Amino acid sequence: MATSGNPIRRIAISTGGGDAPGLNAVIRAAVVSALNRGWECVGIRDGYDGVLTPERFPEGGLIPLTADRVRGITHLGGTILGTTNKNSPLAFPTPQPDGSVVPVDRTAELAERIGENVDALIAIGGDGSMEIAHALSRHGLRVVGVPKTIDNDLDGTVLTFGFLTAVAFATECLDRLHSTAEAHDRVMVVEVMGRYAGWIAMSAGIAATADAILIPEIPFDLTSVARKIAERDRIGRRFSIVVVAEGAYPKGGEHSLVPGEPGRIERLGGIGEKVAEGLRATTGKDVRTVVLGHLLRGGTPVPMDRLLALRFGAAAVRTLAENHCGVMVALDPPEVKYVPLDVATRRMKAVPLDCDTIQTGRDMGISFGD
Amino acid sequence: MATSGNPIRRIAISTGGGDAPGLNAVIRAAVVSALNRGWECVGIRDGYDGVLTPERFPEGGLIPLTADRVRGITHLGGTILGTTNKNSPLAFPTPQPDGSVVPVDRTAELAERIGENVDALIAIGGDGSMEIAHALSRHGLRVVGVPKTIDNDLDGTVLTFGFLTAVAFATECLDRLHSTAEAHDRVMVVEVMGRYAGWIAMSAGIAATADAILIPEIPFDLTSVARKIAERDRIGRRFSIVVVAEGAYPKGGEHSLVPGEPGRIERLGGIGEKVAEGLRATTGKDVRTVVLGHLLRGGTPVPMDRLLALRFGAAAVRTLAENHCGVMVALDPPEVKYVPLDVATRRMKAVPLDCDTIQTGRDMGISFGD
Amino acid sequence: MATSGNPIRRIAISTGGGDAPGLNAVIRAAVVSALNRGWECVGIRDGYDGVLTPERFPEGGLIPLTADRVRGITHLGGTILGTTNKNSPLAFPTPQPDGSVVPVDRTAELAERIGENVDALIAIGGDGSMEIAHALSRHGLRVVGVPKTIDNDLDGTVLTFGFLTAVAFATECLDRLHSTAEAHDRVMVVEVMGRYAGWIAMSAGIAATADAILIPEIPFDLTSVARKIAERDRIGRRFSIVVVAEGAYPKGGEHSLVPGEPGRIERLGGIGEKVAEGLRATTGKDVRTVVLGHLLRGGTPVPMDRLLALRFGAAAVRTLAENHCGVMVALDPPEVKYVPLDVATRRMKAVPLDCDTIQTGRDMGISFGD
Amino acid sequence: MATSGNPIRRIAISTGGGDAPGLNAVIRAAVVSALNRGWECVGIRDGYDGVLTPERFPEGGLIPLTADRVRGITHLGGTILGTTNKNSPLAFPTPQPDGSVVPVDRTAELAERIGENVDALIAIGGDGSMEIAHALSRHGLRVVGVPKTIDNDLDGTVLTFGFLTAVAFATECLDRLHSTAEAHDRVMVVEVMGRYAGWIAMSAGIAATADAILIPEIPFDLTSVARKIAERDRIGRRFSIVVVAEGAYPKGGEHSLVPGEPGRIERLGGIGEKVAEGLRATTGKDVRTVVLGHLLRGGTPVPMDRLLALRFGAAAVRTLAENHCGVMVALDPPEVKYVPLDVATRRMKAVPLDCDTIQTGRDMGISFGD
Repeated sequence: MATSGNPIRRIAISTGGGDAPGLNAVIRAAVVSALNRGWECVGIRDGYDGVLTPERFPEGGLIPLTADRVRGITHLGGTILGTTNKNSPLAFPTPQPDGSVVPVDRTAELAERIGENVDALIAIGGDGSMEIAHALSRHGLRVVGVPKTIDNDLDGTVLTFGFLTAVAFATECLDRLHSTAEAHDRVMVVEVMGRYAGWIAMSAGIAATADAILIPEIPFDLTSVARKIAERDRIGRRFSIVVVAEGAYPKGGEHSLVPGEPGRIERLGGIGEKVAEGLRATTGKDVRTVVLGHLLRGGTPVPMDRLLALRFGAAAVRTLAENHCGVMVALDPPEVKYVPLDVATRRMKAVPLDCDTIQTGRDMGISFGD
Repeated sequence: MATSGNPIRRIAISTGGGDAPGLNAVIRAAVVSALNRGWECVGIRDGYDGVLTPERFPEGGLIPLTADRVRGITHLGGTILGTTNKNSPLAFPTPQPDGSVVPVDRTAELAERIGENVDALIAIGGDGSMEIAHALSRHGLRVVGVPKTIDNDLDGTVLTFGFLTAVAFATECLDRLHSTAEAHDRVMVVEVMGRYAGWIAMSAGIAATADAILIPEIPFDLTSVARKIAERDRIGRRFSIVVVAEGAYPKGGEHSLVPGEPGRIERLGGIGEKVAEGLRATTGKDVRTVVLGHLLRGGTPVPMDRLLALRFGAAAVRTLAENHCGVMVALDPPEVKYVPLDVATRRMKAVPLDCDTIQTGRDMGISFGD
Repeated sequence: MATSGNPIRRIAISTGGGDAPGLNAVIRAAVVSALNRGWECVGIRDGYDGVLTPERFPEGGLIPLTADRVRGITHLGGTILGTTNKNSPLAFPTPQPDGSVVPVDRTAELAERIGENVDALIAIGGDGSMEIAHALSRHGLRVVGVPKTIDNDLDGTVLTFGFLTAVAFATECLDRLHSTAEAHDRVMVVEVMGRYAGWIAMSAGIAATADAILIPEIPFDLTSVARKIAERDRIGRRFSIVVVAEGAYPKGGEHSLVPGEPGRIERLGGIGEKVAEGLRATTGKDVRTVVLGHLLRGGTPVPMDRLLALRFGAAAVRTLAENHCGVMVALDPPEVKYVPLDVATRRMKAVPLDCDTIQTGRDMGISFGD
Repeated sequence: MATSGNPIRRIAISTGGGDAPGLNAVIRAAVVSALNRGWECVGIRDGYDGVLTPERFPEGGLIPLTADRVRGITHLGGTILGTTNKNSPLAFPTPQPDGSVVPVDRTAELAERIGENVDALIAIGGDGSMEIAHALSRHGLRVVGVPKTIDNDLDGTVLTFGFLTAVAFATECLDRLHSTAEAHDRVMVVEVMGRYAGWIAMSAGIAATADAILIPEIPFDLTSVARKIAERDRIGRRFSIVVVAEGAYPKGGEHSLVPGEPGRIERLGGIGEKVAEGLRATTGKDVRTVVLGHLLRGGTPVPMDRLLALRFGAAAVRTLAENHCGVMVALDPPEVKYVPLDVATRRMKAVPLDCDTIQTGRDMGISFGD
């Protein structure tokens, strides 16, 4: 395994977790920057499967990343490396002699296998991927993490790529629903991503001048939302738009998610329809539900996400070149810097209840359900 | 009531049925054209409710449509007049002395009330609205219809506004899902509008190079779709996109919709999820469903829809000025002409199975589930 | 050279003239359709340069077009084959023994060289390319043409791909300029493509509710445009949008373009700025010019252009498979059919002065400068 | 004139300088927030002309801003109040007894006239408008400024609304030109806004992976750009994209702009075409120029610009409510705060030459012409 003092000649890149617009831009910037320094680059397929389960990849679990291979990918959604999404970051599903498959911490083995091939790793991913990156780093691999989360809930960076694209598309969808809601005097309940944090719901909801916004940070009371809808009816605005983050939950109820607990994903879903049912019963209005879900993940990154992703990719290579590792690149506006990997994984970044954006919503009469 | 020979001095405009991008462009073109001929214009609120249930509108069920009122609305989704969507076109829900509400054919009364106010009517709407327009015409009102249907299923016109916008947005959504499906080796089942006809599913599906497209015109066999997915898996394309029109139904099964039958809307829905369940069981893959539904209705019309809507609006006024009525304006490419109202309402326009677009799909290896 | 009766086993594809959004979609549909019939495909680089000047292409002037090569290109602007734009279609610039370069008709040689390699050719291009295709066909090569023109001025087809994308972007640009014009009480003169025909100017101009539209089909009188601007000023609309096709010219003046004459391109340009100068002098207002030019050529095709391009590509292969050649595929709504190549090249398709779209503009008070 | 201790009951809003996407969103948020506090709102027409030259506005130079008036304007480009653009901020063109018009500092009079009508002013605008706001504040008017600049060159705030929209559209245009440049082996020189600072050129240029970016902060040497183009030619990339900020200038030459000097606008323009001429001569390639200019100003603000504009509008009202004035709201990420007005007007915010974004460009091999 490479020791931290050795000069770098070859690096690997991996993408983990749910895909986000901008992953390919990070890859391109990292590869072009690295090639320009005389380094070679390889990509690991499907998260770390290309290294851990090479038998799945007859054509090889590592993809040589040349200038040709990363041409024209800046604006492509998805990731040319493939990705995986597992519930428990450090434990990889592993076949046992008896034929069963159990989760096993294979990060030591992973660090060794990667280290046999390259001098350093750029690991692009969300909280789970940063936990793995941190473990790999502790096992002696030179690692730089690149934060990725649609939800913008990673601590340690003010912004991550993919989030702006998700907000842009969610806002466009809300605009569309606005006109049809108004034409038919309807209430539209729109569920958006945001398991632990309401950044997308808040940003798109305010940008599209929604009437109510429900986020995990503020347990809601449907009576309060119904009151807002009734108030609008009274002044002749007979339609309303309600934006709900998928992790929102009612006051007195319990947050249905336990971060870090396996299986947490399965327990989610359907809060939009539940809110719609509640409002249908209370308001007697025609209430419809729209779930944006997967639509917020894919697609071409908006220019500012492309730019941020390119900056992250180039910064990751610079960080390695400057002999730093065990860190994650991060936006500390207006500059991209880096923070220790453990800072990034310590906790989720929730929407602060006293931030000026929430205050803007309140000033404009938007209900947050409290 | 105005006789057909009298010069026109005042016209009414109404919008009925589900909203479609371009309604406001029709209104603007009709109003500006009419004003330029020295006519006055009024809009009827919420379909015909502005005339039939004036008590609902304290500020008046008719809106004066001046140059100022229609300024800057060409690109707005929805309709500034409001609309209604009823299951039974000719029967308006009517309160009875005993307090109950029953559907009653009030078209004779409606024709009279409108005729008291104006010399002619421009009725914008889908098949139901054209049936009403036809009835009003038979009751002696000078009427010109303007076809509107997201689904493009109105006979008598090659194209209607709103359809191109729906196809554009559906294609964009498919593009987005493509990248996330590929990154995660998933099957995405995407349900789009299209109760009786598969125009949106076919057009967006082929434009976005989907792998299977299920439309009401071709009853499907899931085994055939699963085979297509397996074939792709074999050549290393481990993801697939399946587009499903909401009116698609399995071979041997029955079309769940009976055109013209009251309550037909309630019987729809969920075919996307049913297809997904079937494919999940057959293929063992990670299959997700996305329902585009209302998202396809709202929003700014794409330029060609704006243009078509403006042409329809101006043509409707010209048709009246040339003393024709009882007709619907229609696109007979490259010109907008008109057809008798009964032609338009005689039957749905289904996708012809031998059209070159279906053939294009087949040539490119897309499965239609047959 | 293949005789027309022989079965087809291998085809070539070329793209000529200015690029248009949708070229790659045609290529993809043709290649996938052909491969599905068991044919091989090659692409000729840079128009016909890959065959005529093979020395320019050390890596070969023919590109094998496999399923992999055409994957993911449907939505890409430009052409993966490259293209060339010459003033005189049949005469290729040819180096002479004395070192000079003169235009020579090399279509006989070209037909032979192509025929040595493949059994048939799909030639995608505009009027010049269709003339070459016609010549190649007369020299015995099996050719099917696919019409391409941003300007929509090719006779024989109601619509070509690329045009809708150009109209969409031009309309978006007009929308943008609308708001800045209004904020500053300015006149914006916007020059768009359209050398011989005003389709783009007319369509985008009406869709964006411009105030005046100048097209080659209607020689203009600036006094009439100035009058329109003054009229708007009087009613408090102190800004105006004037759309000018690049081939528009003043009444009494002469059309600056002679179709088919070499050097015709050089004589164009600057009409937007000339109109602006004229209006500045006459109206005394703040008049600005914007030239959209190249911006209308590139970019992702809008969904309906993708669909039309895919239909054209598949239809070209079907046409060959059905043993037809010497024809051009064409849209005869709602179906794609084909017409003899000489029909397509006989004359430009101008905007008919009595079409309903022009009439719509007039009804809405738009000045056409006459 | 209102003293700073008095409770606020009525405020005025003005928009000055070139228009920017988001102005209407600021207005809406300020008005809705103010109405929700029980304040009245009026808008001043055309910068301050509504107050200074009331005779120009027969219907009144002040527009009552009610909830109805600001409905549905969040996404509209331009400004419903109108604006003006003058070269010398503090000196308003003023008719003299002898018939001439000379610039006169009328800020004292302006402060008084505004103060007669309202208790405070929200002044939205660029550096010139902030200078006026500062002067009004010194004359005793309660003023809060809201920064607006497409160019992002206002000191005191990390970001202003309108900039993100301009970058988004510039990037889209570069993407379009990319495909046409590649198809024709051309060099495209694209001139974008940016008189004193290269933020737009740098951000859009890197996001769109341009090959060279010329900004006012780095005087350029065309030889260096030509070398980059030749280098690309050598590796078979026979096209290039060069982005030029309108204020860029050659090494050894002189910046053509003197900030604050009257007439500075007239001296600008044409640098794109000059660069193109230079490159045409040096490289012998087909070089085309596209000037984006006004296209970058108008249009619907992208969601993040809408959100920032709404936050600024609400923050301006909160700032007044908290009894602060003589300040400008500003983004100090992640929060909107405020800074003294004189900080904002002290100097332009140039792109720091050592920022990580420039470094990203360099790492990726983009030439900055130095």
